[in-house]
Amino acid sequence: MCRWIAYSGTPVLLSKVLFEPSHSLIDQSLHSRMGVETTNGDGFGIGWYTEDTTVTPAVVRDVGPAWNNRNLREVAHHVRSGLFFAHIRAATGTAVQQANSHPFRHDNWMWMHNGMINGFRLVRRDLAVAVDPALYPDIEGSTDSELMFFLALTFGLTEDPPGAVARMAGLIEDAGHARGIRHPLQMTVAVSDGERLWVFRYSSEGHSRSLYFSTEVSSLRALHPDTGFLHDISDETRLVVSEPLGELVGAWNEVPESSYGVVQPGRDALHPFRPVPGG
Amino acid sequence: MCRWIAYSGTPVLLSKVLFEPSHSLIDQSLHSRMGVETTNGDGFGIGWYTEDTTVTPAVVRDVGPAWNNRNLREVAHHVRSGLFFAHIRAATGTAVQQANSHPFRHDNWMWMHNGMINGFRLVRRDLAVAVDPALYPDIEGSTDSELMFFLALTFGLTEDPPGAVARMAGLIEDAGHARGIRHPLQMTVAVSDGERLWVFRYSSEGHSRSLYFSTEVSSLRALHPDTGFLHDISDETRLVVSEPLGELVGAWNEVPESSYGVVQPGRDALHPFRPVPGG
Amino acid sequence: MCRWIAYSGTPVLLSKVLFEPSHSLIDQSLHSRMGVETTNGDGFGIGWYTEDTTVTPAVVRDVGPAWNNRNLREVAHHVRSGLFFAHIRAATGTAVQQANSHPFRHDNWMWMHNGMINGFRLVRRDLAVAVDPALYPDIEGSTDSELMFFLALTFGLTEDPPGAVARMAGLIEDAGHARGIRHPLQMTVAVSDGERLWVFRYSSEGHSRSLYFSTEVSSLRALHPDTGFLHDISDETRLVVSEPLGELVGAWNEVPESSYGVVQPGRDALHPFRPVPGG
Amino acid sequence: MCRWIAYSGTPVLLSKVLFEPSHSLIDQSLHSRMGVETTNGDGFGIGWYTEDTTVTPAVVRDVGPAWNNRNLREVAHHVRSGLFFAHIRAATGTAVQQANSHPFRHDNWMWMHNGMINGFRLVRRDLAVAVDPALYPDIEGSTDSELMFFLALTFGLTEDPPGAVARMAGLIEDAGHARGIRHPLQMTVAVSDGERLWVFRYSSEGHSRSLYFSTEVSSLRALHPDTGFLHDISDETRLVVSEPLGELVGAWNEVPESSYGVVQPGRDALHPFRPVPGG
Repeated sequence: MCRWIAYSGTPVLLSKVLFEPSHSLIDQSLHSRMGVETTNGDGFGIGWYTEDTTVTPAVVRDVGPAWNNRNLREVAHHVRSGLFFAHIRAATGTAVQQANSHPFRHDNWMWMHNGMINGFRLVRRDLAVAVDPALYPDIEGSTDSELMFFLALTFGLTEDPPGAVARMAGLIEDAGHARGIRHPLQMTVAVSDGERLWVFRYSSEGHSRSLYFSTEVSSLRALHPDTGFLHDISDETRLVVSEPLGELVGAWNEVPESSYGVVQPGRDALHPFRPVPGG
Repeated sequence: MCRWIAYSGTPVLLSKVLFEPSHSLIDQSLHSRMGVETTNGDGFGIGWYTEDTTVTPAVVRDVGPAWNNRNLREVAHHVRSGLFFAHIRAATGTAVQQANSHPFRHDNWMWMHNGMINGFRLVRRDLAVAVDPALYPDIEGSTDSELMFFLALTFGLTEDPPGAVARMAGLIEDAGHARGIRHPLQMTVAVSDGERLWVFRYSSEGHSRSLYFSTEVSSLRALHPDTGFLHDISDETRLVVSEPLGELVGAWNEVPESSYGVVQPGRDALHPFRPVPGG
Repeated sequence: MCRWIAYSGTPVLLSKVLFEPSHSLIDQSLHSRMGVETTNGDGFGIGWYTEDTTVTPAVVRDVGPAWNNRNLREVAHHVRSGLFFAHIRAATGTAVQQANSHPFRHDNWMWMHNGMINGFRLVRRDLAVAVDPALYPDIEGSTDSELMFFLALTFGLTEDPPGAVARMAGLIEDAGHARGIRHPLQMTVAVSDGERLWVFRYSSEGHSRSLYFSTEVSSLRALHPDTGFLHDISDETRLVVSEPLGELVGAWNEVPESSYGVVQPGRDALHPFRPVPGG
Repeated sequence: MCRWIAYSGTPVLLSKVLFEPSHSLIDQSLHSRMGVETTNGDGFGIGWYTEDTTVTPAVVRDVGPAWNNRNLREVAHHVRSGLFFAHIRAATGTAVQQANSHPFRHDNWMWMHNGMINGFRLVRRDLAVAVDPALYPDIEGSTDSELMFFLALTFGLTEDPPGAVARMAGLIEDAGHARGIRHPLQMTVAVSDGERLWVFRYSSEGHSRSLYFSTEVSSLRALHPDTGFLHDISDETRLVVSEPLGELVGAWNEVPESSYGVVQPGRDALHPFRPVPGG
């Protein structure tokens, strides 16, 4: 499928997180260890919030592999951010085009996804007509992931992210079941408004794609004294990743099945996640 | 908007038509004379039928300008066809991505368009839900042009092209009027099944984008004795173009307002075109 | 040929300069007024220095047109810099590929060019063999512009920019004359080390491509009270452009024929430029 | 490094060879079994000769991976040729750009390569200055592979391919040894003039990249009665591949170390290959 990473904490050069670790996301684009696909070369994207909160986050996406993209390398080595997303794509049937690369953006909200809607072709129209008509014209691509974002927006993402994602998941399961699909949804999702970060791990079959969050930075520092950027970041800094960064193995916690986490100023939180049927 | 050319007749190297004429379509990508936009650099596409009628036509599309694309040049200089389309795009608000480049294909049918649905954002969803649910999952891009193709398919394009396009146009006008749009549709369209070629020129306001068809090849030859490829093609060969090829000025006939033509084995035909309200 | 802009002064969002002015560089990619070519759609690039002077400047380049490139738009609207370059390309015979887009970078130096080496194919090898063998392996593209940069580096660009460019120009004229080319060189060049900015206007025939520099920001503000970003920048801010930005007409000074300017902390300077024969 | 395939024989749709076999070249772009790199996603190219021998071969190259490229798929499924090349690239340090993708073309000659010049940066200039000055201006990219082609052309490729390649290899070894490189050259090369096909397997260390040629088509047919396209091709048809196509395992012969083969009308031939020092 795909791999992604979400970072929240002390502003750092994106490259410190995306390129420097030994089993970095960029390495994973060529050699993923835990993904369904070992190669994630069907496009990539990064999105970052700037300190100036009056502007929407920047989203840079392209269609080639991340591992050989020079512009990605340039931006990552020259841009600092305290809240950013990165995503590498392994396409599952839909076109490789910029609008199908993650993250997706709506105003100050960003969304990225690993997984799939099973039988997407069967339910695509059912789901599309459920999107708020005022939002529908903004759909640009053909992926399940973008449509999930629009459904979540429809169901109130900007007011209550966990509730909206639960209704989105419920609608997808309803639609899939109605079309005879046994396990309609497989997802790990990250979404942010620029201040908080929500991450979700769920699948209808109860066997979800991998998702990990970093423990206390202080613990990481102790385990990895030679990892430079750990020394420059605050204890509140948090990473959430599809697959542990290589050199930090041992310092990762699995996000439990059917749960979601909130990374926020103050204490982070982890809660159970259950789809809400009825859309 | 865009510029396009449709060719039907003696198989020729595509380059003879696309590159060699002095005001060729490739020139028009950089310097259109009659288009609303002088530059058509937001993607291009070619589609050609092969002699082997058991296969669908080939469609090669990309996102850069036609004028500097080497692969286009290579293919055009090495592929022969007796029925082919070429299109250069000037985007009107939607993304520049491969799935938004023309021509579009469905089985053995190809479609390309110059023009626009006015107020497309207002009616996009209305039109999308009118698409046959069995076809909806195949929509890949975000253009009005692709959606027009899917509507025409929904309304029986493969059985009765002029009737289906008339119903498509009627639905678009109905939808636009319902949203307060005075002149909902502006179009020149080419569509083919590999044997016949239909071309349409219509706009709600009665002031349509330019469209021309070539007269008898024998007349063209007399006017342009130095145009090489004219000597190699049969008298039945026909070109339909958004804008006359430069060196052939004087040999073009305007497709009349609100009409459509059929290029086919035997005698070609020209008929009035009227949208059929009620979808 | 091409169009470029160099900015030195108060850090601003790149978009303030590249996108917001009415006849902005991005507009010029589609509709240049003063260029030899009206369309500059064969690639583009931006390069910016960050506040952290320990890193080289970022260079983001691509092969499509600037006017429809979303990543350019994203970066420009989210990155601030006090010293940056932007370039839009109209290819003159060489391939449209990333390595042929400007600006070029070597360590902390950036270079961009508008113009051409006349008869470049005739002298390309002569010039290439004159490049410092230690630098030669870093040549990636096939343009005259990149080769000019490598020659300037060979002749001491990092020590004495005006002297190195003079020797570069002298070598190009020597080589061209030896091959029977009457007017070998046509150039406007910008080069920077991250602190100072040098701009050159010269052609062998004494009829160089246009180049303008902005006058005092205080005068600009008086002339254009409605141009937002002028109010946010210091009086020392300076723009050098191939073609005046539309809404600022009247506030531009032509860089004289055969001269070069230095934009630097303190007082800027303008000097005559003469090639130094003998390489 | 890379993977390639050369086909000579009965004209077939390129897709029959490139896409349909179970471990096809396109599969190898994502999952190579025998390559140094398992992923060959840094560009691709195809080149084919048409029946009209008055034109040069078509070369279509791009920078993304082969596995997700729709235009490659379209062309391969609609173009027939009796002599064609296909190449998938895994970059070894040089830029991912169209001019660095194989095959390379000069008039009616095509060239593709798997392997590398060790220490290429050290010898690049030495080799470039050895290129015929009349040919030098046509160099477009920055790869060792393209430079090898230009050296072979310099040494008489069009007159005596094996002799020219031997002198090319000798020069590269001379240049490498002079710079202290122990094993300067690693190569499998295919080259054709549209009638004959030469393939070379050689490395300075005597441990060359894999290369295989197909045995008699009649034997292949007996072994693989269910492989459709084998029934449509003549007994003279020959494939040469970096890596056996999966479903045809058992029917491949290794090209011996330090040897070259000629595929031609009449009897094919296999000879020893030895570099000729002295360039």
